[in-house]
Amino acid sequence: MPVGTLATVKTLTPAQLESTNPQVVLANTYHLHLQPGEAIVSKAGGLHRFMGWKGPMLTDSGGFQVFSLSQLRTIAEAGVTFRSPRDGLLIEMTPERSIAIQNALGADIIMAFDECPPYPADRTAIEAATDRTYRWLIRCLNAHQRPEEQALFGIVQGGVYLDLRRSAAQALAELDLVGYAIGGVSVGEPPELIHQIVEATAPLLPESKPRYLMGVGTYREMAKAIASGVDMFDCVIPTRLGRHGAALVRGERWNLKNAKFREDFQPLDPTCLCYTCQNFSRAYLSHLVRCKEVLAYTLLSLHNVNELVRFTREIRESILSDRFTSDFAQWLDIPVSSDR
Amino acid sequence: MPVGTLATVKTLTPAQLESTNPQVVLANTYHLHLQPGEAIVSKAGGLHRFMGWKGPMLTDSGGFQVFSLSQLRTIAEAGVTFRSPRDGLLIEMTPERSIAIQNALGADIIMAFDECPPYPADRTAIEAATDRTYRWLIRCLNAHQRPEEQALFGIVQGGVYLDLRRSAAQALAELDLVGYAIGGVSVGEPPELIHQIVEATAPLLPESKPRYLMGVGTYREMAKAIASGVDMFDCVIPTRLGRHGAALVRGERWNLKNAKFREDFQPLDPTCLCYTCQNFSRAYLSHLVRCKEVLAYTLLSLHNVNELVRFTREIRESILSDRFTSDFAQWLDIPVSSDR
Repeated sequence: MPVGTLATVKTLTPAQLESTNPQVVLANTYHLHLQPGEAIVSKAGGLHRFMGWKGPMLTDSGGFQVFSLSQLRTIAEAGVTFRSPRDGLLIEMTPERSIAIQNALGADIIMAFDECPPYPADRTAIEAATDRTYRWLIRCLNAHQRPEEQALFGIVQGGVYLDLRRSAAQALAELDLVGYAIGGVSVGEPPELIHQIVEATAPLLPESKPRYLMGVGTYREMAKAIASGVDMFDCVIPTRLGRHGAALVRGERWNLKNAKFREDFQPLDPTCLCYTCQNFSRAYLSHLVRCKEVLAYTLLSLHNVNELVRFTREIRESILSDRFTSDFAQWLDIPVSSDR
Repeated sequence: MPVGTLATVKTLTPAQLESTNPQVVLANTYHLHLQPGEAIVSKAGGLHRFMGWKGPMLTDSGGFQVFSLSQLRTIAEAGVTFRSPRDGLLIEMTPERSIAIQNALGADIIMAFDECPPYPADRTAIEAATDRTYRWLIRCLNAHQRPEEQALFGIVQGGVYLDLRRSAAQALAELDLVGYAIGGVSVGEPPELIHQIVEATAPLLPESKPRYLMGVGTYREMAKAIASGVDMFDCVIPTRLGRHGAALVRGERWNLKNAKFREDFQPLDPTCLCYTCQNFSRAYLSHLVRCKEVLAYTLLSLHNVNELVRFTREIRESILSDRFTSDFAQWLDIPVSSDR
C-alpha cells in the first residue's frame, strides 16, 4: 500500500498511481485531522472523492504519529493529550475520537487506536502498553459507527518480547476481527528483530483474515513476512526515495545523481512496464535530478511504487504456482541450490 | 507554447502536457547548454526523444538569457563572453555557436542569436543592438546546418523606438525567412508599450509566415497581439503561477490559499475539460497548497497551461467564424455594444 499521508501519494496523481496497480492506498488520520480536518473531508464526500482515488483505502489510527511525532504528550487510560504542531492547541486523542475521525474520513479499512511505545523500551512499559492497546481495541469496536462499510483491524503490540507478542496475538485472534495488524515494528529496531517478531506473531493470527505488517516495505522484510503469512504492507520508502532522487531497481537502490548515469540511455529497468521506464532514460532522469526538477521526483516515485507493487505481485504469483521459496530464495536467506 | 526550460515543462509529464494540446513546446538553449549539455541531448537522439515529447519543439537562441541572467558578460561584434553560473568557466556564445547548439538539440524551430538590450535603454544603444542583431542573423543563416529539418526564425529588435522596430521588421521581411519573431519585449516595460511595439511591427512582417511574440502570454497581451497579426506566444506564467499555488480561471488569478476555497467543492472551472477540473475540487487544491504538496503544483500547472491553450484556441475559432473582435472585446479594450 503506497502511503498518501495528506490525501496525496506525494508527487503522483491518482491516474499515475492507478497505473501502478496498488490494491490499497493508505492515508494518515493524524495528519488529516490537523489539515484539512475530517469535517471538510466528510463534506467533500469522504476521502475517496476528496482525493480522487477510486480504489480501496485504509486509514491508520493516528496512534503511531501521536507517539512518534508529538511533543508534550501525556498518556492516560482515557487516551493521549498532545499539542497541535500547527497552532499549539491541546488535542485529546482517544480510541473513540480516532474511530469517529476515521468514520468521518470514510476509508474502507480503519485501524484501532493503539499505544505504540518507542524502541528500545523495557518489558514493564511494553507489557502495560500491550494491555492498554487491548482495552483500547474493545473501546474502538464499541465506538465504531459504520461496521458494515468500514473494516476495523486490531493491532498486535508487544515490542520485541515474543511471549508478549504471542499472548497479544492469541487474545486478538479470539475476538474474530475482520483483519489484523502487527504494529510497533519498524520503529528503529534491527531488521532481524522484525523477522523474529513476525515469525512469532503472524502464524497465531487467523489465516483466513488479512494480516497486515505496519510500516514495512523493503524487499527482504516483505518476502520474509509473507513467508510467515503476512498479506499487507505499507511503506513510505518508494515515494521518499523518489523524492531523494533514488530508484529501486530489482532490489537495489540507485542514486540517479551518480555520474555513471549521465550518458546511460537505457530505461531504469528494461523489463519494467511503468510509464517512467517506457518513456525515459536514466540519462534524462539523472539530468532532472541534477536540476532538482520536480518531474524527477514524480517519475522516480512512480517507478518505485510500481516496482514494489510488482515485487509483491510476483510473490503472489509464485505462491499460487508453488514456486515461492525457490524463486525468492535470495530474499528469504535460503541458500540457492546449485542445480537451479 | 508552454516553456520547458530544462527539457521539462516544470511539474508535468509529457503525457499530462499532451492532454492540454499545446501546438509547440519551448526549451531554453542557454540552460540546456549548461546542463546536461547539447552533446548528451544529441546522443540521446535529440530533444524530443530525450524528454519524451512527440510534438513540435522550439528552442530559443540563448540570447535573452545571456543578456538577462549572466553576470560578467562582455559584448563584442563576434559574440558574448560570460561566466558559467555553474562552474565559473568562461563561455563564448556567438551566432555560430548558438546555431550549432540548436542544431545539436534538434528542435523543429530554432531562433537567431540576437542582442536583447534591457529596458530602459537609450536610443543609441538600441540602434546599435538592432543593427548587430541583423548582422548576427545573417551569420546564423550561414551557420545553419540543418535547414531542411529545422526552421530558423529571425528576431526583430528595436526596443520601444517604433521607427527602429519598423525598419528592422522591413529589413527582415526582405530576407524571406521561414518565420519571424518580435523580441526584446516583456523585459520590464509597461504593457501599453508592448501593444504599441506589436502594432508597429507585426503588420510589416509577412502575413503568410508565422509571427511569434516572445515572452508574452497573458490574456490581454495575447488577444491584442493576435489582433495585430501575431500567431505564436511563449510564457512561463501558467507554470510559474501553478508553482505558487495560483490558478488562471477565465481571465482571473486565484490564490488557492484563500480561505474561501477551503470548503468550496466545485472544480476550479466547471466548464474546463482538463484533468484537474474533471477530478478535483477547489477545496482539495486549497488543501494541497496549504500542505505545500507537489501535487498542487502539478494540478495547477496542468490547468493553467490548458487554460491558456484553450484561450488561444477559442480566439482561433472566433477568427475563423469572424467573431473575434466581438467575442473578445473584453480583452481588446473595445467597448462592448449594448445590444449584445
